[in-house]
Amino acid sequence: MITTPIGIAIVGFGYWGPNLVRNVVEHPEFRLLGLCELDQVRGSHFAARHPGVRVAPDLEQLLLDPRIQAVAIATPPRTHHELARQALRAGKHVLVEKPLASSVDQADELIELAERQRLVLMPGHTFVYSPAVNKVRELIRSGEVGEVYFITSSRMNLGLYQPDGVISDLAPHDLSILLYWLERPLARVSAAAQSIFQLGVPETAFLTVSFAGGATANVQVSWLAPRKLRQMVVVGSRRMISYEDTSSDEAVRIYDRGLDFCQAQAPATFGEYQLTYRSGDIVVPRIEAVEPLSLELEDFARAIRYHAEPRSNSALGREIVRAIEAAHASMERAGEPIELAIGSHPDQSRERALVDRSAPAAVSC
Amino acid sequence: MITTPIGIAIVGFGYWGPNLVRNVVEHPEFRLLGLCELDQVRGSHFAARHPGVRVAPDLEQLLLDPRIQAVAIATPPRTHHELARQALRAGKHVLVEKPLASSVDQADELIELAERQRLVLMPGHTFVYSPAVNKVRELIRSGEVGEVYFITSSRMNLGLYQPDGVISDLAPHDLSILLYWLERPLARVSAAAQSIFQLGVPETAFLTVSFAGGATANVQVSWLAPRKLRQMVVVGSRRMISYEDTSSDEAVRIYDRGLDFCQAQAPATFGEYQLTYRSGDIVVPRIEAVEPLSLELEDFARAIRYHAEPRSNSALGREIVRAIEAAHASMERAGEPIELAIGSHPDQSRERALVDRSAPAAVSC
Amino acid sequence: MITTPIGIAIVGFGYWGPNLVRNVVEHPEFRLLGLCELDQVRGSHFAARHPGVRVAPDLEQLLLDPRIQAVAIATPPRTHHELARQALRAGKHVLVEKPLASSVDQADELIELAERQRLVLMPGHTFVYSPAVNKVRELIRSGEVGEVYFITSSRMNLGLYQPDGVISDLAPHDLSILLYWLERPLARVSAAAQSIFQLGVPETAFLTVSFAGGATANVQVSWLAPRKLRQMVVVGSRRMISYEDTSSDEAVRIYDRGLDFCQAQAPATFGEYQLTYRSGDIVVPRIEAVEPLSLELEDFARAIRYHAEPRSNSALGREIVRAIEAAHASMERAGEPIELAIGSHPDQSRERALVDRSAPAAVSC
Amino acid sequence: MITTPIGIAIVGFGYWGPNLVRNVVEHPEFRLLGLCELDQVRGSHFAARHPGVRVAPDLEQLLLDPRIQAVAIATPPRTHHELARQALRAGKHVLVEKPLASSVDQADELIELAERQRLVLMPGHTFVYSPAVNKVRELIRSGEVGEVYFITSSRMNLGLYQPDGVISDLAPHDLSILLYWLERPLARVSAAAQSIFQLGVPETAFLTVSFAGGATANVQVSWLAPRKLRQMVVVGSRRMISYEDTSSDEAVRIYDRGLDFCQAQAPATFGEYQLTYRSGDIVVPRIEAVEPLSLELEDFARAIRYHAEPRSNSALGREIVRAIEAAHASMERAGEPIELAIGSHPDQSRERALVDRSAPAAVSC
Repeated sequence: MITTPIGIAIVGFGYWGPNLVRNVVEHPEFRLLGLCELDQVRGSHFAARHPGVRVAPDLEQLLLDPRIQAVAIATPPRTHHELARQALRAGKHVLVEKPLASSVDQADELIELAERQRLVLMPGHTFVYSPAVNKVRELIRSGEVGEVYFITSSRMNLGLYQPDGVISDLAPHDLSILLYWLERPLARVSAAAQSIFQLGVPETAFLTVSFAGGATANVQVSWLAPRKLRQMVVVGSRRMISYEDTSSDEAVRIYDRGLDFCQAQAPATFGEYQLTYRSGDIVVPRIEAVEPLSLELEDFARAIRYHAEPRSNSALGREIVRAIEAAHASMERAGEPIELAIGSHPDQSRERALVDRSAPAAVSC
Repeated sequence: MITTPIGIAIVGFGYWGPNLVRNVVEHPEFRLLGLCELDQVRGSHFAARHPGVRVAPDLEQLLLDPRIQAVAIATPPRTHHELARQALRAGKHVLVEKPLASSVDQADELIELAERQRLVLMPGHTFVYSPAVNKVRELIRSGEVGEVYFITSSRMNLGLYQPDGVISDLAPHDLSILLYWLERPLARVSAAAQSIFQLGVPETAFLTVSFAGGATANVQVSWLAPRKLRQMVVVGSRRMISYEDTSSDEAVRIYDRGLDFCQAQAPATFGEYQLTYRSGDIVVPRIEAVEPLSLELEDFARAIRYHAEPRSNSALGREIVRAIEAAHASMERAGEPIELAIGSHPDQSRERALVDRSAPAAVSC
Repeated sequence: MITTPIGIAIVGFGYWGPNLVRNVVEHPEFRLLGLCELDQVRGSHFAARHPGVRVAPDLEQLLLDPRIQAVAIATPPRTHHELARQALRAGKHVLVEKPLASSVDQADELIELAERQRLVLMPGHTFVYSPAVNKVRELIRSGEVGEVYFITSSRMNLGLYQPDGVISDLAPHDLSILLYWLERPLARVSAAAQSIFQLGVPETAFLTVSFAGGATANVQVSWLAPRKLRQMVVVGSRRMISYEDTSSDEAVRIYDRGLDFCQAQAPATFGEYQLTYRSGDIVVPRIEAVEPLSLELEDFARAIRYHAEPRSNSALGREIVRAIEAAHASMERAGEPIELAIGSHPDQSRERALVDRSAPAAVSC
Repeated sequence: MITTPIGIAIVGFGYWGPNLVRNVVEHPEFRLLGLCELDQVRGSHFAARHPGVRVAPDLEQLLLDPRIQAVAIATPPRTHHELARQALRAGKHVLVEKPLASSVDQADELIELAERQRLVLMPGHTFVYSPAVNKVRELIRSGEVGEVYFITSSRMNLGLYQPDGVISDLAPHDLSILLYWLERPLARVSAAAQSIFQLGVPETAFLTVSFAGGATANVQVSWLAPRKLRQMVVVGSRRMISYEDTSSDEAVRIYDRGLDFCQAQAPATFGEYQLTYRSGDIVVPRIEAVEPLSLELEDFARAIRYHAEPRSNSALGREIVRAIEAAHASMERAGEPIELAIGSHPDQSRERALVDRSAPAAVSC
């Protein structure tokens, strides 16, 4: 039996929208039925190439169409909450670009709305569908990396200036990857940010993020760097992993070198720790070449058809909104660290989903 | 007229000492007369190859020798203050490895001691003699970089475990380079650190350092990373510079690409900023191949002979001790930022030496 | 006044055909009217996405359509001559993938046919439209490189096995670039080739190519290398250039380092040459990001509309066929060098077009 | 029982001599007793730092010293034969820099002289002691690479101008590595060379070298390239290996990607070969950091003490001289290939030593 494709409308044909359109058109699970775009030039540019798709400047018109079962929102962050709410109220499944909303309260409202109507609400954290990101996750999960000590991340590029600032714009990528890799809730966030051109709109920020159980991350995000840099380093007790998003062919490198600290039999004073240096090979694993957005759409379809939880789910989206909110609070207090209560959400199971983490590999001597 | 070489003794023949010995022996300005080394095996290993040099386990013995005019100290940080004090009291010029001392109070004591006796007290911030570091400084000074927005630094490697922790061990390198490049005093420091193996001895730390006048730096230091990483990125209004210490031949890269923000005639609301992307060449300037330590010794000799201020002077050394102290204080308060009073030192001229900075290049449209 | 797009048919929808289709569809100068494809599966795959385009397994049918003014041929090399002849006889302008034909005789027949009917016959040497290749050409033309001493080229990749062998498949790329850069006729070709899997079908070959006036090139081509390698190095009296096709962002690097040989006043014996080493910067020039195939189609359109000579013209295509023929002859004689007569073609002006080369920059001391 | 160090004299303190001196001085197996250097400035520079070593402008003087048992020759190639003969006649063991001699006849004379007196005659093919070169050899020997199809080598750098030309100067490195890896005799050599500055003294050459049993190599050597390039690629039926001499930390890379050709059940026509692409990981194996010259000296000592054959033996040295001779002959005939008789040497066992090669790994489907 062949299933009917899911009727979908896309909201926003700006920076990310065309990627969504291209992937939706090519995806057998979806049928593109509508585009909502305020800008007339963009709208008619789209219309010329997609004669069968209805183009409207207003979402409400499209929501009336009963063939449209799902809506994908690719508009500026400030509009996510309002547009997602409209779509959910109209009984549509929603895929919304990151971040899910501008505040935890807004996110909770959307989550509740979706749950009440048994609709899918999925934030578009595309990186959790990246084959390279998943390769690193496997290496962490399997114990190959050992206990993760710390992670550094640099995400810099000449960026589009957006009123929400670079933390809202870029840090959700790092946070989604970190949460997906570590599978632990956030414990503490601090952020030092810099605004050169417009007061209160940071273009550069340095975040320090602590996770329950001890791992720490340092995240550098900036719109001002002329060289594209998307580099993460995971340092664990057994191995180090580097991951560069820009290098397609050799994105992940596994360093089988490390430092073993072994406690001597009867440790009394400092210096009784023995150091053993391991010095081994580097492995560059083969990474499958699949477009993450295509896998994300597949997961969205699966979630709609089977009422399944997508990999990029609303609990993850909410946790990231919570971190962004805390980062902004820290930024305003000149970098003071903000503690994040674990299990703050009424539905504790959401937090738990993030915590089921196998015990870290012990350091053996 | 040929000048007589300066008689010198070296204290410590551990990790850095052999480098000092090799450079002193080859340097025409110095004559190595003594080595102080507690460890008998190391001492006799040295003695076998340097028959003319006196080896003693105790510094006092060597200080009695009137031919020894200068002492170079390459021992663990905790011993710097005591050994430097001993040498200064005996009327010797002192070159001491970084950091100058373990606290600002200790540093001030040494500085006063040296000034009273008109002796050279020089901390060994070797990086300020690195041709690549000086190339970047020229590019900043000449206005080519424009206004420096921010600097990131990653200094990671499998490290020797030292009781003073990674901040004392590695961050002085970053701080000396940052202060030497920016020529402005520090304004604020925060540090999030991680101790896995011994409570209170951080192996990894993330520092955020703000400078008077607005530039910010993010510094990642760690002993736990199996891949050597010594990478700094300077982002300015005109150009970006990357500097990698490990890549000898192409250490410095200048990116003539950037983002110009130009205010429209009558800016009223957000969005009236116009963005202009410049997209230009990358230049890898030729860097002279000279060993920094050799230049450092030359500067030490010059300072002794002409009562001149060395490039790596005690004011720089003290500022770095102050920053390390503040970083440790922040670390103990879970990363809370510590404000650093500008001009806190009794002798204001020291601070001033750091501030004479030419006005940043304006952003022209 | 708006010009009507040129009606075009594409022959072959295998490896290269889809690239042609995509570029033709997006190009305002052309209108895709027909596709000729023997394979029914490929043909119907195409038809499903391009409802307005006529699909036929036979070229003759399409050639009858008077709206089709031009034909682009993307079939295996062995079929080029026959298909191009058919199209030219039907009065169509022809763009044919490299190589132009399988022999010089075939090439001459096509050239004559096209000239008689004043039709464009253009071989698809796409690399001469590559912005990076053109950047290197500028550097040679302007005298910045100085006299070109030699060029090396490695073009390796896991390849599609074709009955014509790797020399016909890959070397035309190197030869087109070399001829375009040096602007001199070929003087001598030798080729050592290796056939592992099928007698007489080389998968790997090493060519040495000498040009009139002294420059030499060494070309390594192989289908058997698992790492993609497309690297050329130009060594001249003033500068060295490296060009890597796979690295998009830093494709061209200019090394301002070199060796100057200066003759002493009265050179009598060896050793009176003085060596001066220049040691300078490396520059990575900005290269425009434009798809070469799009520029190639633009040039095809221009040639059709204005009876202009395209950059990738039939004289270039013929010279490459001549070189491939010679390489195969050398290969069969175990690598014996084959002399190529300069000006062997009846129409001498064709050769001349390749020779108008400004005098090499003298080596000054 | 402690063995007495071997008394040794070094001839030549120019480019390579200082490396020999440094390694001999540090080596427990040798005691440096004499240096022969024509140039007075160099000689006295050496004498100032090595008070116990006798310095003479004439080798004969040193050969009279009975404590000197061995002589290491680091002079220009043209002088190797004469100096080695002198030393052998005086009953000294000889380590001579590559190439062993300027002709096969000269090499044979030296080999006979050494054999008659049971002295060690060892050419200094240092690369066969390189840990990276040995790693690649292991990978070939163990069958991991499979059947070696071809090898490319680029060895370029701004070079010292020598009257013997670049083939004598650089190609011995490639040839020693190729023979050491493949363990098969040479079958055919061709060389295209270029002389810009002095007639008959090539600065750039492209060699094609065929080995008994089918493997082929392409070797590019040049003194004129401003960028140091020492890169070899080994393509085999199972894996590809790249080896870069300049990159210390990641010298060897193993590509587990490849192309399998499998014959169909009843192969009748072309096209019945099936292609299977393997796409796998890249491994960068750990390479021990040991100076090859130190291992070479150890092997020299072992050969002297135990009458053992050194790894870099005179048969290897002679084969390389034979190849260089053939390359020059080919060069003079504009690149005509020169066949090399297998087993041309009176003592066939020498050739055999090069041939004992385990059967190539079959290509399995």
